[in-house]
Amino acid sequence: MKKINVAIIGASGYTGLELMKILINHPHFEITYIATTEGGIKASALHPSLVKVFEQEVHKADAKEVAKHAELAFLALPHKAAMGFAKELLALQVKVVDLSADYRLGLEAYEKHYCEHEDKENLELAVYGLPEINKSNIQKASLVANPGCYPTASILGILPFLPYLKKDAPIFIDAKSGVSGAGKKPTLTSHFVTINENIFAYNPLKHRHEPEIAEKLRLVSGHDYEVNFVPHLLPVSRGMLISAYLQTKELINAKEILTQFYQDARFVRVREVPVDIKSTAGTNFCDIFVSQKGNSIFVSSSIDNLLRGASSQAVVNANLMCGFDEAAGIPIIAYVP
Amino acid sequence: MKKINVAIIGASGYTGLELMKILINHPHFEITYIATTEGGIKASALHPSLVKVFEQEVHKADAKEVAKHAELAFLALPHKAAMGFAKELLALQVKVVDLSADYRLGLEAYEKHYCEHEDKENLELAVYGLPEINKSNIQKASLVANPGCYPTASILGILPFLPYLKKDAPIFIDAKSGVSGAGKKPTLTSHFVTINENIFAYNPLKHRHEPEIAEKLRLVSGHDYEVNFVPHLLPVSRGMLISAYLQTKELINAKEILTQFYQDARFVRVREVPVDIKSTAGTNFCDIFVSQKGNSIFVSSSIDNLLRGASSQAVVNANLMCGFDEAAGIPIIAYVP
Amino acid sequence: MKKINVAIIGASGYTGLELMKILINHPHFEITYIATTEGGIKASALHPSLVKVFEQEVHKADAKEVAKHAELAFLALPHKAAMGFAKELLALQVKVVDLSADYRLGLEAYEKHYCEHEDKENLELAVYGLPEINKSNIQKASLVANPGCYPTASILGILPFLPYLKKDAPIFIDAKSGVSGAGKKPTLTSHFVTINENIFAYNPLKHRHEPEIAEKLRLVSGHDYEVNFVPHLLPVSRGMLISAYLQTKELINAKEILTQFYQDARFVRVREVPVDIKSTAGTNFCDIFVSQKGNSIFVSSSIDNLLRGASSQAVVNANLMCGFDEAAGIPIIAYVP
Amino acid sequence: MKKINVAIIGASGYTGLELMKILINHPHFEITYIATTEGGIKASALHPSLVKVFEQEVHKADAKEVAKHAELAFLALPHKAAMGFAKELLALQVKVVDLSADYRLGLEAYEKHYCEHEDKENLELAVYGLPEINKSNIQKASLVANPGCYPTASILGILPFLPYLKKDAPIFIDAKSGVSGAGKKPTLTSHFVTINENIFAYNPLKHRHEPEIAEKLRLVSGHDYEVNFVPHLLPVSRGMLISAYLQTKELINAKEILTQFYQDARFVRVREVPVDIKSTAGTNFCDIFVSQKGNSIFVSSSIDNLLRGASSQAVVNANLMCGFDEAAGIPIIAYVP
Repeated sequence: MKKINVAIIGASGYTGLELMKILINHPHFEITYIATTEGGIKASALHPSLVKVFEQEVHKADAKEVAKHAELAFLALPHKAAMGFAKELLALQVKVVDLSADYRLGLEAYEKHYCEHEDKENLELAVYGLPEINKSNIQKASLVANPGCYPTASILGILPFLPYLKKDAPIFIDAKSGVSGAGKKPTLTSHFVTINENIFAYNPLKHRHEPEIAEKLRLVSGHDYEVNFVPHLLPVSRGMLISAYLQTKELINAKEILTQFYQDARFVRVREVPVDIKSTAGTNFCDIFVSQKGNSIFVSSSIDNLLRGASSQAVVNANLMCGFDEAAGIPIIAYVP
Repeated sequence: MKKINVAIIGASGYTGLELMKILINHPHFEITYIATTEGGIKASALHPSLVKVFEQEVHKADAKEVAKHAELAFLALPHKAAMGFAKELLALQVKVVDLSADYRLGLEAYEKHYCEHEDKENLELAVYGLPEINKSNIQKASLVANPGCYPTASILGILPFLPYLKKDAPIFIDAKSGVSGAGKKPTLTSHFVTINENIFAYNPLKHRHEPEIAEKLRLVSGHDYEVNFVPHLLPVSRGMLISAYLQTKELINAKEILTQFYQDARFVRVREVPVDIKSTAGTNFCDIFVSQKGNSIFVSSSIDNLLRGASSQAVVNANLMCGFDEAAGIPIIAYVP
Repeated sequence: MKKINVAIIGASGYTGLELMKILINHPHFEITYIATTEGGIKASALHPSLVKVFEQEVHKADAKEVAKHAELAFLALPHKAAMGFAKELLALQVKVVDLSADYRLGLEAYEKHYCEHEDKENLELAVYGLPEINKSNIQKASLVANPGCYPTASILGILPFLPYLKKDAPIFIDAKSGVSGAGKKPTLTSHFVTINENIFAYNPLKHRHEPEIAEKLRLVSGHDYEVNFVPHLLPVSRGMLISAYLQTKELINAKEILTQFYQDARFVRVREVPVDIKSTAGTNFCDIFVSQKGNSIFVSSSIDNLLRGASSQAVVNANLMCGFDEAAGIPIIAYVP
Repeated sequence: MKKINVAIIGASGYTGLELMKILINHPHFEITYIATTEGGIKASALHPSLVKVFEQEVHKADAKEVAKHAELAFLALPHKAAMGFAKELLALQVKVVDLSADYRLGLEAYEKHYCEHEDKENLELAVYGLPEINKSNIQKASLVANPGCYPTASILGILPFLPYLKKDAPIFIDAKSGVSGAGKKPTLTSHFVTINENIFAYNPLKHRHEPEIAEKLRLVSGHDYEVNFVPHLLPVSRGMLISAYLQTKELINAKEILTQFYQDARFVRVREVPVDIKSTAGTNFCDIFVSQKGNSIFVSSSIDNLLRGASSQAVVNANLMCGFDEAAGIPIIAYVP
């Protein structure tokens, strides 16, 4: 079978690296173009672990060059930078999986929480790339907005229980993320001494993933739940754990509902014991556990923030957009022990 | 001033070590008796960091010997073992600060969650040793039940908001603890490879500190709140962070309420930014931060699980029981960086 | 191409897991038999990260059953247990890659440092499975002794410089290993609190890998160098760094010698900057850096202790024994970031 | 007894914080002046863990102001900045303990490895502040050069064996340090993701502490040993382990020599088992272990890089300079567990 040529724009960060790691051995995709803002370097100079593994040239990002070399592009760029690029690529008939926040939200919510939107036209056509809720739309899409890491794990955990939730009860989400989620840039927050032997919340009740979670839950359920989201930084490099606290209208069998909901899911595993983040690190799995006490429900879901929360989910989306099996080339073997 | 002689029963574990570390330099207490189940060893052999620092003989625990040498005893023993010992000591007129769970709960709750109680008489006289709610009772007590680590941080965080809470809304507590809280015994759970680069919940909605929290909140507020408590194990040695999610009846100014509530507290610090666990590690402080979105409240409180959550709080209680300043000899300088 | 059936004996530990992780997707091997001492469990129950990935039955180890199902067996057993099993398997015409120490040393050295040898016959036929020094012998072997983790990294680092070393100067090797090297069994040493924020040497100058390194260096160089080996435990789960300190007879160009020596090596990378353990974690690579000051040489080599130090090297050996490309199915993409 | 007023210049970094933590409770010193380059802030704003503990104003550093308020100043400044300040202070009759490298080396060595020296006059008068080799000189000094962290642990480990070393054999020192040694500034090297689950050498055979070690060993022994020094960065916040590899002229009893050498030392502990860094973290102790195989010696020494390697040693020096007991106010209780 002929391979489809793909481009990675934004190769210097962690998600760019993860995209390369997956696509190097993908059965149907061929990396034909890689770019960063500056270019003029080899992939293995950006990421020394790639020496003797993957040594392609990295170019200065240029949409026309992308269009010459690739049918689909992954954008691993900061928000705002991404939409400028996506607009150009789509005009040149290149399919786009955008890992930034630029096409995840409705216009109003986006402009409230991020900045002015400069590609309103495509925003309306963009498909939110969470396969568990949007598979058929993704298959037809030219532009997929890859979900945020926190929303991915939160929505997958809460989804099965939406029909049973008390409408006027707030949803509380206590999230814990590894530091790679904060990116590669050295700051006082990412300093080893700050993070090591420590944990703290950041942006409590005002993180920009909160409206993303709320919007998607509303779209699925038709009800506007109050979502209260508090992320914490963990002293680990990768991995994300979501603890969601829900209240149901009446007594349900949470375990059974969860199990049935995901019985055919390729990338969700329902667990009998509380999930950990090591069992999903290195994979596209979302592991979910549920426990209840009367009408109070505790859902714990775990993903690799860089994979299911970014790069491997992006490749699943690309698989679907190109008519491949969603699982083609997707990592499922965890980085344990 | 003449020093008061004290005993430490249960010197081999982490809380026993912390008791020694505090009492070695205490201005009013003198360690005159230390014991473990076996005895026949030096303190510095149990804890090699004490070589050239504190080299007292450790005895085989014997209540009569304690009574000969000390006026007050700290029991750092497992539950069940503690009550047998406490009963004997109290009969011999030795004051007791018990770090176990044996005297923390009402009889019914204790027997439901732990085991049959073998010292019901003293259980009725025991005072729950959280100075912020029980100071004057502690001053008069012969037997103080030192609170659990999770209850200490949870109650201190929730306390100021009790008058404002919606009565029928559950309280959700998402707790994160360092591994020292699980004790020194090697198990698969405490294995480095299990904990490192990982996080997971344990005993969700059924940890034995849940009824302790619920009971104390009920005693203070007169209302029986539904408490949902989920602890997680962190890849850190010491420290504990509590994230409590509350709902108020009406809009309050949470920040102001918190600040006023603790304005005179010696060992509670209200923070402007989310608290971390490093700033309290090594101290008896409980740091608290609050944030709100309408009627939804997020409280974050941090303690050192071995100190404010066990040994330094025990010494504060002993200070009060003996008529000393509660802060005498209590550590307040954190283990940063 | 028809696949070759292989067995894994000793599936419950870390190296057993790593063998499965590699062989699940191997192009030429098929796992047809897995066993532990007890059996009667699924692979995914032993290692929960394998749920939905690899769910084969695990049997109670039995040599005759192995011979029925497989042409080659990997033994991931403790020393002593391994030789009993290997002996039986070889008699049944099953090829063996033994990950234990049982066939690594000459008889005398083995019995001095381990225990009495119970399979002296096969010991004489065993080939030491370090492909960089023994490739053609491995290709003809029925029994390969997979090298120890410390010897692998040490020998690969020192090998290029052997012709230049001062004969009467000791070789000093300061080694640092992740905790997974000590196995899965919970002990006080592997307790999180013991290892975290800590480092210490263990078995200094008397670790059993010291004679292994010395013997192999003697076999290659013809000279009996004094090897002084000191391992340390690091607060990391996987990875191993070797710092070797050498003295040369005369001034050499160490960098050039190293680069030339490994110019055609598939699994050795010569680095311009000091190597780290993250760039080799998850791979079969050995990364090496050298620096010198006059006749004093510092060599730094890095491997994944569970892969190049055990399981992936074992599969390279199996590849060679079966006439495949040595790199077939061997992991080369690191677990970064 | 009247307290002596002291100043801390350079309060924003880790060593400045450690100085405050020690001096807050010192029996004979009173902190009367604290400064940073900018000033205009409270100590507890620089270091939030000091809230409710120590809230003094921090000034913009000014030598004349120091002279008005203090008899002795601790300089916790970068090299070069320190000598400008020290010169002024000494002219104003203020005693100085300088934690930088500015007065540690002879002129030639300093200018070779650092920069031009701008206070050659005082350089000649400066005393190297390692109490174990220089106690009586420190007692008479006005300017003490506080040793580097690596030299402190290295010299203390090697010192007892100097008379027995082979003159023409190089000394190899493999050092491992926590990240706090690299300071508070965020860089790619100090990023959590770079350090966590990792270890690597840096500046091998060319770190600026190498000439410091060599010079001091020469001054003590009268012989110019070749010192080969390779530091590594550990995934821990604080602590330092030195592994020194030595060769003796003839067979010695290393253990006995070490034990006798330090039998009266207040701050050195000879250990029966390999030292770890946790047992010295938080203290001024240097723990030392020795092992030997014939004429090859392995010495392992452990210190807290911020305390014995900087701030607590600085206060010991100040104690000696002011005629106090060297141990007054010096921390000896470790941050375990």
